[in-house]
Amino acid sequence: MDEVRIIEIKKSIFEDNDKDADALRAELRKKGVFLLNLMSSPGSGKTTTLIKTINALKNEINIAVMEADIDSDVDAVKIKDATGVQSIQLHTGGMCHLDAEMTRQGLNGLDLSNTDLVILENVGNLVCPAEFDTGASKNCMILSVPEGHDKPLKYPLMFSICDLVLINKMDVAPYFDFDLMKCKEYIKMRNPNAVVIPICAKTGDGIDKFATWLKNNITQQKEGK
Amino acid sequence: MDEVRIIEIKKSIFEDNDKDADALRAELRKKGVFLLNLMSSPGSGKTTTLIKTINALKNEINIAVMEADIDSDVDAVKIKDATGVQSIQLHTGGMCHLDAEMTRQGLNGLDLSNTDLVILENVGNLVCPAEFDTGASKNCMILSVPEGHDKPLKYPLMFSICDLVLINKMDVAPYFDFDLMKCKEYIKMRNPNAVVIPICAKTGDGIDKFATWLKNNITQQKEGK
Repeated sequence: MDEVRIIEIKKSIFEDNDKDADALRAELRKKGVFLLNLMSSPGSGKTTTLIKTINALKNEINIAVMEADIDSDVDAVKIKDATGVQSIQLHTGGMCHLDAEMTRQGLNGLDLSNTDLVILENVGNLVCPAEFDTGASKNCMILSVPEGHDKPLKYPLMFSICDLVLINKMDVAPYFDFDLMKCKEYIKMRNPNAVVIPICAKTGDGIDKFATWLKNNITQQKEGK
Repeated sequence: MDEVRIIEIKKSIFEDNDKDADALRAELRKKGVFLLNLMSSPGSGKTTTLIKTINALKNEINIAVMEADIDSDVDAVKIKDATGVQSIQLHTGGMCHLDAEMTRQGLNGLDLSNTDLVILENVGNLVCPAEFDTGASKNCMILSVPEGHDKPLKYPLMFSICDLVLINKMDVAPYFDFDLMKCKEYIKMRNPNAVVIPICAKTGDGIDKFATWLKNNITQQKEGK
């Protein structure tokens, strides 16, 4: 297995994270970099989804990945081995989320020249990451079928801040009491503008739709929309 | 559906949570109350596991439940409807965990006379709840099969503080790449003393073992062990 760079993220000293996040967003837009903040519970399939999506897109656009975790470097190594794209591990030192300054520390560890898309895989947690703007161009979350369709009722903030909700592990839906229609209804209740795409990262189903969403949003940012 | 009491938990003002937690633990022991702190990711099956376990135990011991959530009262209502035991909802006001003082605020909302066991269903989160001692007699977590066997590598603190790890949704193991032996090995790496019980809350498999573990631990506390 390849070795990956590990960056120990320091706790941020900025008091006004929202202002800092806006500044980072503007900087990235100027550089032509689209930053996707990907969030979910532990074990919802973030890394597998990323691998499939990156392999579908990497011949068209240049991608880099930042894997945030409290500990371990398993995800960054997995991404590098399976896709070959630039991948670094961010250690949060026990912190349960990333804010804009922490995200900036991670970005400083990447070569951004000629990079169209940076994906930040945030810490697996439906609570705290929703409270801190990372400076991302768009927020995306994965909800997996085994977690249940009631999660938008229980984690309202997370669903309200996400532009895109991927519903993963659709292949195992027959074995769980998961009601996709109800889930979509609850998501719309929290965020009427959220786009919802059911996928199965394992089989690749729906990954093309996620890839198209990404390409369209990257183009729109480049065109200043 | 029954109505349940909802308590809005205030952020705690105590600086030394560990000391406060020890004090709460001593108070509860004196009152003959065993407090179980139950933690997990969102959607791992905490509420279903509790319903099955309470129904298996409620004729032998007196049980009360505190359901902590950022929002909603679906879990407390579910528990009350399905078991009939004393059940209250704690709203954390966006907070991602409970500490000892917040737990105490919840306990004050319960009638503890003649109660042997209080179960605190903590906020669904593998990160922050691990950092705050609630004053519980024992810590228990649920890891569900769809989350993957690598979770002890990624959330070390949670696994290191738990006396008992329930591995739930064993019925769907054939549909996931879940290695139970490896999972047990990773858990022991984090905490050699952790007891691991595979269960399926949906079918009831293994619930008897969890119930026995609870009864033994309650008796040991009562006997001052």
